[in-house]
Amino acid sequence: MLLDVLNFAGIAVFAASGAMLGVRKDFDMWGIITVGVLTGVGGGVLRDVLLGITPPASINGWGPIVTATVASLVVFFFHPAFTALHRSILVLDAFGMGLFAATGASIALDVGASAFAATTVGLLTAVGGGMLRDVISNEIPLLLQPSDLYAVPAVLGAAIVAVGATYTSAPHWIWLVVGSVLATGLRLVSLRFALRLPTARR
Amino acid sequence: MLLDVLNFAGIAVFAASGAMLGVRKDFDMWGIITVGVLTGVGGGVLRDVLLGITPPASINGWGPIVTATVASLVVFFFHPAFTALHRSILVLDAFGMGLFAATGASIALDVGASAFAATTVGLLTAVGGGMLRDVISNEIPLLLQPSDLYAVPAVLGAAIVAVGATYTSAPHWIWLVVGSVLATGLRLVSLRFALRLPTARR
Amino acid sequence: MLLDVLNFAGIAVFAASGAMLGVRKDFDMWGIITVGVLTGVGGGVLRDVLLGITPPASINGWGPIVTATVASLVVFFFHPAFTALHRSILVLDAFGMGLFAATGASIALDVGASAFAATTVGLLTAVGGGMLRDVISNEIPLLLQPSDLYAVPAVLGAAIVAVGATYTSAPHWIWLVVGSVLATGLRLVSLRFALRLPTARR
Repeated sequence: MLLDVLNFAGIAVFAASGAMLGVRKDFDMWGIITVGVLTGVGGGVLRDVLLGITPPASINGWGPIVTATVASLVVFFFHPAFTALHRSILVLDAFGMGLFAATGASIALDVGASAFAATTVGLLTAVGGGMLRDVISNEIPLLLQPSDLYAVPAVLGAAIVAVGATYTSAPHWIWLVVGSVLATGLRLVSLRFALRLPTARR
Repeated sequence: MLLDVLNFAGIAVFAASGAMLGVRKDFDMWGIITVGVLTGVGGGVLRDVLLGITPPASINGWGPIVTATVASLVVFFFHPAFTALHRSILVLDAFGMGLFAATGASIALDVGASAFAATTVGLLTAVGGGMLRDVISNEIPLLLQPSDLYAVPAVLGAAIVAVGATYTSAPHWIWLVVGSVLATGLRLVSLRFALRLPTARR
Repeated sequence: MLLDVLNFAGIAVFAASGAMLGVRKDFDMWGIITVGVLTGVGGGVLRDVLLGITPPASINGWGPIVTATVASLVVFFFHPAFTALHRSILVLDAFGMGLFAATGASIALDVGASAFAATTVGLLTAVGGGMLRDVISNEIPLLLQPSDLYAVPAVLGAAIVAVGATYTSAPHWIWLVVGSVLATGLRLVSLRFALRLPTARR
């Protein structure tokens, strides 16, 4: 139940980030909703396609797409407020990322994926929507460019869940909590102290 | 039978639109065929991957890809004629879009998708090829930019089929006809009267 | 066994080509690894998703992604050496392409795909990683632009395997050898003599 609420909150925050890019690119209302929905549910759809869960859960029930559409419409009508809230949105996004990484890995284990595959799937669940947002909008994905850590916390959070749930007997949900808190926490630390990875020497 | 003919006609028109973009971007013969084929069958492949139909019907039989290849080659050799036919092609494309939206929704219902998922899948069947065409050619998808209605008719046509076939006892094919005619008709009206969705106020 | 070695060598070469693009685009270490891994395993993941093999083999075992990551890190630290080796890398890439086209078609036949589908899947296995590399980096795919033959050898190699293994009683592995040697050979001939396809007359 709490997990459901968090999941929908994550979808809404991701969708809002997509819709804001759509506003900046001068898309029309449909374009803004499309980018918002793809950003909000893209990671989950990618996860399910890789795991053979068809139709993907994010499109089979109406909850995820309706949530993402509403979030996109709120951005459409009130986007100046969101620009001012930039910092808060980064924090909310960190929670969404951590949650998606952990739940993505957990769902992968549930359908019999290896711990390695579950880590990869968790990572893709967390970053897939944002990658899709940037590719569909004809931008170089933020994730590839020099910036604060984002994918590294996601892959660590997913790995904690995958390894913990596979190789220990502690209850599954404990690893979900540990993995998502760790990923979100590392992301927030990285934002606070502007931690970055190096680029290649030219 | 009539449905098969219409389906291949839709693939050919979509492929031609892809090949024309390829010509404009100075791709070579292979590039033009590739964009043409991806545009012609991309929506159907996306539909089947989301529904777990593997290998996707559009690549398992030779009909769809060969049709799209021939259409692309015709554009390759005679493209100036197509530029002159711009208006007629928009009309043919409207028929392809309506048909793909309706059949996409119908195929989704056949494999047990919910009415909501069938609507989403129908929409993606209709617009997926065009999105792929633009992304692969490094353009911002037309679908996202301010222009005449395209996706809205597709989603309405798919929804009619999904809701009608799920909640009434009228024969399935009636909803196929109603859905595709409605989508195509609304698209033609939108072209004629330049109906548009708003952009966000800046 | 030999096939495994060749397969990992192909993944490494493909990953190196992706990582080199990442260096050129000034991505950070994570971005360079991401593009490298997507290029190295993207074709195989696409193949498995189209064939319903989930989770895809390239993400279920750790070998492919670790191989691609190591190759990307080598490029990250020593990329000037790779620029000097440009010509040798093109040759190695030709071997990877031929191998992926042939094995992709063969795996498709193993899961019951038609000869036509196996040809298409073999082609996509060979060129999918490179397409993904360019799309994710916001470049027009090299494959679409006028250049030496690449996809044509891949589709011929895949077709040889698909048709040979379907319609003759010769052992499967013979067609694997013939298909990959033919694809690689035609690619090398095309590089040596700068064979090209025409563009459309403007």
